Amino acid sequence: MDQPVTRADVAHSHVTFDEGLSLECGVTLRSHTVAFRTYGRLNAARSNAVLVCHALTLDQYVAEPHPITGRPGWWNAVVGPGRPVDTDRFFVICPNVLGGCMGSTGPLSNRELPDGAVSADEPWGTDFPPVTIRDMVRAQKRLIEHLGIDRLFAVIGGSMGGMQVLQWAALYPESVFAAMPIATASYHSAQNIAFHEVGRQAIFADPDWQNGRYWQTGQIPARGLAVARMCAHITYLSEEALTRKFGRRLQNAPKDSTEAINLFGEMFEVQSYLRHQGSSFVQRFDANSYLTITRAMDYFDVAADCGGDLATAFKGTRTRFLLASFSSDWLFPTTASRSIARALNRAGANVSFVEFPTDKGHDAFLLDEPDFHRTLAGFLGGCAIHAGLHP
Amino acid sequence: MDQPVTRADVAHSHVTFDEGLSLECGVTLRSHTVAFRTYGRLNAARSNAVLVCHALTLDQYVAEPHPITGRPGWWNAVVGPGRPVDTDRFFVICPNVLGGCMGSTGPLSNRELPDGAVSADEPWGTDFPPVTIRDMVRAQKRLIEHLGIDRLFAVIGGSMGGMQVLQWAALYPESVFAAMPIATASYHSAQNIAFHEVGRQAIFADPDWQNGRYWQTGQIPARGLAVARMCAHITYLSEEALTRKFGRRLQNAPKDSTEAINLFGEMFEVQSYLRHQGSSFVQRFDANSYLTITRAMDYFDVAADCGGDLATAFKGTRTRFLLASFSSDWLFPTTASRSIARALNRAGANVSFVEFPTDKGHDAFLLDEPDFHRTLAGFLGGCAIHAGLHP
Repeated sequence: MDQPVTRADVAHSHVTFDEGLSLECGVTLRSHTVAFRTYGRLNAARSNAVLVCHALTLDQYVAEPHPITGRPGWWNAVVGPGRPVDTDRFFVICPNVLGGCMGSTGPLSNRELPDGAVSADEPWGTDFPPVTIRDMVRAQKRLIEHLGIDRLFAVIGGSMGGMQVLQWAALYPESVFAAMPIATASYHSAQNIAFHEVGRQAIFADPDWQNGRYWQTGQIPARGLAVARMCAHITYLSEEALTRKFGRRLQNAPKDSTEAINLFGEMFEVQSYLRHQGSSFVQRFDANSYLTITRAMDYFDVAADCGGDLATAFKGTRTRFLLASFSSDWLFPTTASRSIARALNRAGANVSFVEFPTDKGHDAFLLDEPDFHRTLAGFLGGCAIHAGLHP
Repeated sequence: MDQPVTRADVAHSHVTFDEGLSLECGVTLRSHTVAFRTYGRLNAARSNAVLVCHALTLDQYVAEPHPITGRPGWWNAVVGPGRPVDTDRFFVICPNVLGGCMGSTGPLSNRELPDGAVSADEPWGTDFPPVTIRDMVRAQKRLIEHLGIDRLFAVIGGSMGGMQVLQWAALYPESVFAAMPIATASYHSAQNIAFHEVGRQAIFADPDWQNGRYWQTGQIPARGLAVARMCAHITYLSEEALTRKFGRRLQNAPKDSTEAINLFGEMFEVQSYLRHQGSSFVQRFDANSYLTITRAMDYFDVAADCGGDLATAFKGTRTRFLLASFSSDWLFPTTASRSIARALNRAGANVSFVEFPTDKGHDAFLLDEPDFHRTLAGFLGGCAIHAGLHP
């Protein structure tokens, strides 16, 4: 198993802010770093910026190979020259979220000490303050201001990225011309909290977690984190997709300690697939970040500050919204997007809502879905006309 | 945490068979025990027996308090005097499944040694041969013959119990007058296998599992088994039921090691509920049994022996079938019951199929569902007339 040093060794483009960042929990980070990538060029009017917000375990490497895994950018199909988010036309910014593990301030960062110094060798780990989606968005706002951008042409993201889009539109309505929350919800449901809780308990159950101080031994809680990833991964796929991809097909079981307990020395392909998903994940993701970010998602409820009424959160907004859901997504189902659309309608907002038929489940937002991509491109093109952005 | 000795200390009614039981995997158990409970009286014609088959983590204590937990029988609402399965009229038999941990032969039983002896102190543990649903049913058939019963008036069960019902009807059609497979499927789906795999990996990840030889230290893999139970438990409930029962309500977090990482010292009620489900489960269930039985469910495919055609499995059957599903059950959805009903139709069988509207998910088959209970009672009453069973 690779050690986290592999991840820490990668240098990320970043900017560090020394003005304090007050978090919702009451703690103030004296300093915080936002790691980010950009694609395309900011125009002279600084009016063509598109912020891409990433999901739970993704990062800022949206349209280029991942520096650890070497795999293609996670949204290569959506962001790039001639793509729906056309980098020949738009200046795309993708920051790593606060609490993440790809260069932005999070549990891997060296901890701030009470005397005003920063520890030279001790990361925050589990003592990293609990952050919320709103805290993440406020950190991103600093980055946008740092880049000299007053108003984002668009904010786009799927899953937890969509939560950030909604939070951006609610918190900074004048700074968001167009918002595209995809495959998301205005709050995390009891079932989704429950699945996250299983993952967290799997991490806590791993003795290598060591109460979150695993940097002291260098032994990461790989088995617990892998189980968490396996459980989450099932929720990213539909039942139909699992049946289509794997069904009940068998393969030979590996010659490891669990072989003896596989009937006839065989295992189901879906078992092998899940095990691979688990073991590859732990090489690129930090367990304390996983705890921090899942908790941020669980606490997300954009209407909570407005007495529970989502329409109030968007009252008077001039932002143009495109909501997208996928028919077989049971993690962030169409009903969740529809209730956002209804609230936006009640708020008198300009909103389009499309459900895309697919059997690929929640992951569809990351996959090759031509109708979805055409709709994104069309919506951005239309908004560009309204924004006076010339091709 | 209670030690497994608590479970081992309970004496269960049982019968031991010394004729060998040949398992599908090729191993022959030289001797095997079937623990069981009965309710009501067998009539003189021995024609009023109803076999109740239990689900994954249930047992033979269907209509009386559980000897370990003290909780009421798991199907008190269905089995008893004046209940749908009326013990004033029927002789109800409920065996613990082969591979179980409530007295029937399973991983907790002392292992058979190559020299023909049985170990005095070493259980099978993980070396218990992999068993299938068919093996479970063949062990049950021995019990039924031992009780002097040629033909069961009815076989009934939900979830894995329903798998056993289907296997009984396919394997011993002349011995089953009426069959009631409830909230079940003719094979385990890729998604269901995937969820079981997460649970097994959680157990394997617990160092207290000790490659299944945890009896040597007396330290059971409680944390891994609890995570497995938490994950499975989510699949037993519907999203609607979780929302109705818990929603996003918060409660104070316990003063334990994970408190510090809960935002504002609070936790969601659904987290607390799941943790309780996990920790209470490990006191009554054996991890190796959990591995054995989940694997048996995963391998279940009643049509596999008939070239994949379910209708062939039931060709020429004279058994009367009642299939029941629950609208919000996403673990064994209505589509799975419907495809069984269609296959039975193709086989020319006598089949009724009812989907019950409920928001309770898979667990509905265990809960207070008056329409379901009336339908069971009505079906049994009708079958009794056809069987010439007089009230």
